[in-house]
Amino acid sequence: MARVRLFVEHPLGAGQPVPLSREAAHYLFGVMRLAEGATLAVFNGEDGEWAARVVEAGKKGGTLEAVERTAPQWAPPDLWLLFAPVKKARTDFIVEKAVEMGVRRLVPVATEHTNSERIRRDRLQAHAREAAEQCGAVFVPEVADLARLADTLAAWPEARRIMFCDEGAAGAAGIPERAPDEPGPWAILIGPEGGFSEAERSRLRAMPQAWVTALGPRILRADTAAVAALTLWQSRLGDWR
Amino acid sequence: MARVRLFVEHPLGAGQPVPLSREAAHYLFGVMRLAEGATLAVFNGEDGEWAARVVEAGKKGGTLEAVERTAPQWAPPDLWLLFAPVKKARTDFIVEKAVEMGVRRLVPVATEHTNSERIRRDRLQAHAREAAEQCGAVFVPEVADLARLADTLAAWPEARRIMFCDEGAAGAAGIPERAPDEPGPWAILIGPEGGFSEAERSRLRAMPQAWVTALGPRILRADTAAVAALTLWQSRLGDWR
Repeated sequence: MARVRLFVEHPLGAGQPVPLSREAAHYLFGVMRLAEGATLAVFNGEDGEWAARVVEAGKKGGTLEAVERTAPQWAPPDLWLLFAPVKKARTDFIVEKAVEMGVRRLVPVATEHTNSERIRRDRLQAHAREAAEQCGAVFVPEVADLARLADTLAAWPEARRIMFCDEGAAGAAGIPERAPDEPGPWAILIGPEGGFSEAERSRLRAMPQAWVTALGPRILRADTAAVAALTLWQSRLGDWR
Repeated sequence: MARVRLFVEHPLGAGQPVPLSREAAHYLFGVMRLAEGATLAVFNGEDGEWAARVVEAGKKGGTLEAVERTAPQWAPPDLWLLFAPVKKARTDFIVEKAVEMGVRRLVPVATEHTNSERIRRDRLQAHAREAAEQCGAVFVPEVADLARLADTLAAWPEARRIMFCDEGAAGAAGIPERAPDEPGPWAILIGPEGGFSEAERSRLRAMPQAWVTALGPRILRADTAAVAALTLWQSRLGDWR
């Protein structure tokens, strides 16, 4: 009996009416079979989680009323996930898993060995919203537009550290012991299947913000690598401590 | 240009002819378009990885010849993954990810809140072989038959510790600091999407072999939880150190 959770693009407050889009009405009343008077959980990424009641249920729309706040707003640590888009289903998995694991921003990057040269940003953003609905989050990370890794690194913020997950790297998994323990902006960079080019490797290794890490002795698929890297980061520096 | 890797159920040694099954022939000659004389990598889970040459390529079969050993045999640490089967695609993902992350044995268990009451063991075993082909492993974990969690715990080996991943657990993620650091047999237990029952929780918490761990403040899907738990274990006690 999982409670229905819905992301809405509308302010939330006690007694606040919340109009529903056609898609949301279809999901709540067509798929989940909620009737007028039913309750569900809603969040908008800014006002925490609210209990809401169905006031009007239609085929093409409807209205909820926010009743009371059931959880405060929070955001995951200031962590970005940079990833090279892979096949559609695997890219969806990366987005879903990053939301569950807790990231602030999703940044698709085209590397020299990336096969996919385009993404559907709006589709990935919708996928991030659904993952947040599913995993109990009240925060939805923004999915950035696809950019070239070289351009992204050329404009890289001085204060944001990078956990650079390099398949070719020797040594133990995880952020090295000597890396600073204080929180602060970080990013995790996961490569494409095919790995990084030598030029990209050299570039990254020369950046003072970058900390190279290995991810074990086997080759991981990109979605597995994303979860593994996020686990290492979250348990060392993030909200899993 | 990923090299073709193939699991074969046949002894491997220099000059050893290796007959191919119909499926293997279809994959190598129909899908991957290998011709006679082409080389590929083969492994059987016992003799390491070998370079092999296509001697005979047919539509319904064929023959390889093992040429030279390219990697020694190895096995992952003595770690079992106990998991509750979920939907088909997600169960496949759990198997795939466990092989990539490195486990010795996959043990599907039916818990009180498990929806799936049966599995196709042979299909999951084939999926484990494919994951090993893909991730460069020379070891394929055995997939056990589905058993009830209560029965599995009733016959639990005294020396095998359990990392019990409990969504309801408070505290930091990971095996507690006071858990022994020496290697030895371990298992990771991942629950179903509705979590464990109170009876299962009490039972596990009373076992001297069990170490409870949390997996962060968000609800993880079962396949995400499996990768996260395996990362914590491998980086603390396993072959990721």
